[in-house]
Amino acid sequence: MDLNADLGEGFGIWRLDDDVALLGLVTSANVACGFHAGDASTMRRVCVGAAERGVAVGAQVGYRDLAGFGRRHIAYAFAELRDEVTYQLGALEAFCRPLRTRVRYLKPHGALYHAAATDESQAAALVAALTQYDDQLPLLCSPGSVVAQLAMGAGLRVVPEGFADRGYLPNGQLVPRSAPNALVTDPEEVAERAVRMATERTVVAVDGTVIPCPVESICLHGDTPGAVRSAELVRAALIEHGVALAPFA
Amino acid sequence: MDLNADLGEGFGIWRLDDDVALLGLVTSANVACGFHAGDASTMRRVCVGAAERGVAVGAQVGYRDLAGFGRRHIAYAFAELRDEVTYQLGALEAFCRPLRTRVRYLKPHGALYHAAATDESQAAALVAALTQYDDQLPLLCSPGSVVAQLAMGAGLRVVPEGFADRGYLPNGQLVPRSAPNALVTDPEEVAERAVRMATERTVVAVDGTVIPCPVESICLHGDTPGAVRSAELVRAALIEHGVALAPFA
Amino acid sequence: MDLNADLGEGFGIWRLDDDVALLGLVTSANVACGFHAGDASTMRRVCVGAAERGVAVGAQVGYRDLAGFGRRHIAYAFAELRDEVTYQLGALEAFCRPLRTRVRYLKPHGALYHAAATDESQAAALVAALTQYDDQLPLLCSPGSVVAQLAMGAGLRVVPEGFADRGYLPNGQLVPRSAPNALVTDPEEVAERAVRMATERTVVAVDGTVIPCPVESICLHGDTPGAVRSAELVRAALIEHGVALAPFA
Amino acid sequence: MDLNADLGEGFGIWRLDDDVALLGLVTSANVACGFHAGDASTMRRVCVGAAERGVAVGAQVGYRDLAGFGRRHIAYAFAELRDEVTYQLGALEAFCRPLRTRVRYLKPHGALYHAAATDESQAAALVAALTQYDDQLPLLCSPGSVVAQLAMGAGLRVVPEGFADRGYLPNGQLVPRSAPNALVTDPEEVAERAVRMATERTVVAVDGTVIPCPVESICLHGDTPGAVRSAELVRAALIEHGVALAPFA
Repeated sequence: MDLNADLGEGFGIWRLDDDVALLGLVTSANVACGFHAGDASTMRRVCVGAAERGVAVGAQVGYRDLAGFGRRHIAYAFAELRDEVTYQLGALEAFCRPLRTRVRYLKPHGALYHAAATDESQAAALVAALTQYDDQLPLLCSPGSVVAQLAMGAGLRVVPEGFADRGYLPNGQLVPRSAPNALVTDPEEVAERAVRMATERTVVAVDGTVIPCPVESICLHGDTPGAVRSAELVRAALIEHGVALAPFA
Repeated sequence: MDLNADLGEGFGIWRLDDDVALLGLVTSANVACGFHAGDASTMRRVCVGAAERGVAVGAQVGYRDLAGFGRRHIAYAFAELRDEVTYQLGALEAFCRPLRTRVRYLKPHGALYHAAATDESQAAALVAALTQYDDQLPLLCSPGSVVAQLAMGAGLRVVPEGFADRGYLPNGQLVPRSAPNALVTDPEEVAERAVRMATERTVVAVDGTVIPCPVESICLHGDTPGAVRSAELVRAALIEHGVALAPFA
Repeated sequence: MDLNADLGEGFGIWRLDDDVALLGLVTSANVACGFHAGDASTMRRVCVGAAERGVAVGAQVGYRDLAGFGRRHIAYAFAELRDEVTYQLGALEAFCRPLRTRVRYLKPHGALYHAAATDESQAAALVAALTQYDDQLPLLCSPGSVVAQLAMGAGLRVVPEGFADRGYLPNGQLVPRSAPNALVTDPEEVAERAVRMATERTVVAVDGTVIPCPVESICLHGDTPGAVRSAELVRAALIEHGVALAPFA
Repeated sequence: MDLNADLGEGFGIWRLDDDVALLGLVTSANVACGFHAGDASTMRRVCVGAAERGVAVGAQVGYRDLAGFGRRHIAYAFAELRDEVTYQLGALEAFCRPLRTRVRYLKPHGALYHAAATDESQAAALVAALTQYDDQLPLLCSPGSVVAQLAMGAGLRVVPEGFADRGYLPNGQLVPRSAPNALVTDPEEVAERAVRMATERTVVAVDGTVIPCPVESICLHGDTPGAVRSAELVRAALIEHGVALAPFA
């Protein structure tokens, strides 16, 4: 099983995640590429740390929106989104080159992640960028999303991810954040759900039914001290249950 | 002889140069990479146009300063400049990949060009970025500049460029823009000086002496209608005098 | 009748409109405030030019999106939009102070203009910003828009504007840009329509019916040479028909 | 005596200072205005908090450089700096209006603070912006700086500030940050120095001599937990010694 988390989401003097702690927990690092967060020196630093620990580096691409942290939907036209994703991929690649490594996957961030799950045009822009840049590069995203379907149709590898700290509906979708049960807050329960995802490829939905959860990566969060602690528990529980942790890419 | 010019220096809705006209005149295109000018879709468009015409694409890297068009000196620290140059190199490379081509050289823009000519730290940052990114990539810059010296010391290829429309001092330096004779404005004279640079590797200095001008590329300007007309004359005059035009890279 | 147009929509080195020509034609200048376009020195210059000619200055507020020129919808939350509109109002006011004048009205730009016409939350953010900043400041917008209704409900003065170069549906709405007849391109016809708007407060809809068009300002465009020429014709025709031109504010 | 500190220096999702703690300690809040840090909603929030506590709001104006937090010198031309300072002043003022208060002073930030101390052109740009915007607005800056001299020459009120946590040379200048003794790190000593500044208008220089320190405000720092604790000690010590704390403006 792969563990992924967002890293390098500061900008200039500002920091967000505890990058050092997360690099010790994950097998795949979603590195912010400068549009919603991330500056060049942070990108280099995270790439160096990832290479030292054998962590795979992925391009966490987002909207050009530092003020909104890429969390506000922007009505991008197809070509401008495709091109800005391409730009971000290349920028991150530049920090992998001196380390004799590569960008190993792409994951959309924030509002782009959500748009790609439902919006044909924005999903197609991600797929076009990947296809033209390197059609061997996997896409890390939600199973069942529009972008997952389009990417598979284009012959790309799609890596589905799960969220051990989010509630699931019986149909396999996440409980919307505005609803009760959207978040699982008890760290022990989060760890338990991660183990189930990794060993049985299932999750317990909010109505108590056990549903399939065919994920190849589990997304950890690290933007609060509590989140880091929870991520540590997840990792420890997985190892304790004999789950081999390794990058999917 | 190579002819280079700055291209893709718009941003979003705004345009600056006549990119189409310039692509028909130059052999090397200095493509703005998004920091002082240039957006992702413009970068793609210029790279496509350059590939169609056999024009070499170079990374025209600049300070992060859209408001100042990269023309104001910024006191960058070494590491942050090195990293932002690396970022820009990679971003442009991403648009060359689908075209089965590469970024072929680097040229600093505006205030960075000037800083690199005299400032050890900023010059070293450019050299470090190039060396780490790809030590086979040439640097297009002024002969005699600090960055040229450091780059040669680091084993990089340095391509010196000349300016047919600028006055030269007897010591080979450009006449400062604030001084009289800084600019050669007569298009016929500009073309004549370009021919001399290309065929004799000399230039007539402001005191009338003929001095060596060992350049491998001539820089054209295209940000005004008059500039494009002058660039056309330079190209025509070089061809008329039997000068073979080809990218240096 | 008032004539308004967008001015100061360059940024740094880049220019868009012919500000000098437009200042000679309009009675109200919608000045870009730095978020979708406009920099501080351009704002000062336009304010000075407007003051010299007795042209009223309005804040043309937009999304924070230089790369998209404020033309892409952004899903702003209420408070962040209210606050960014407030910020832009104040920034423009600062250039009016030394001229012993004031910002005289507010007009949303681009995608914000369109969002305000239909989106309750974004419309309410504009109204809240105006109400808190200065409830005597009129809002220039489309008649029948959501923001017009909310603003009137809040006791603000709403100034409806018309477009002499756009087709109208029989219900008084503009023909969508994607449809035929969206644009009126013949300058003589544009001028004729402007005269009808000013003298009869009516417009000929695309089906030939004459419908009410109770506008207090006509919006001119100046971002192309053709647009400026058309604006000149509109102004000349209005004067010829005895229409008094003056700022509404 | 006045106590000032920098507030509102986050941007979007990112935070820097503990604004809430600092608002309880200072009498004057230097509010970042969006160029080096600060977004519209943060500016509003800080202005509201300051108004509630009777804290004076000042415009902490900086270079347009989010990536460098305004700490890198930028070679601004006079007019563009004057205009960007004006823009920032107005933007902050907009959040004071609904609170029936005003921007009460101006203080330059970071590299602009340092440039204003020695660079005639940048200092003059600050003075020009203040003079044109509101010549009753005081300037908070280092005594003996170029900008202090120019401002006094222009008839502006200059409020000199001192730093209880910085070493002073016998000539009254600060010990450069690169030198030993640049910082006073013992909180008790910092508090003691603040009391001396407030009660005797003197400071003990690094050579042990007691020199005049005719300041009207003491600058506190709050960007680390330790800094907040030190600021609390300074405030407590001043009150204990009977120093009345009140805004200078």
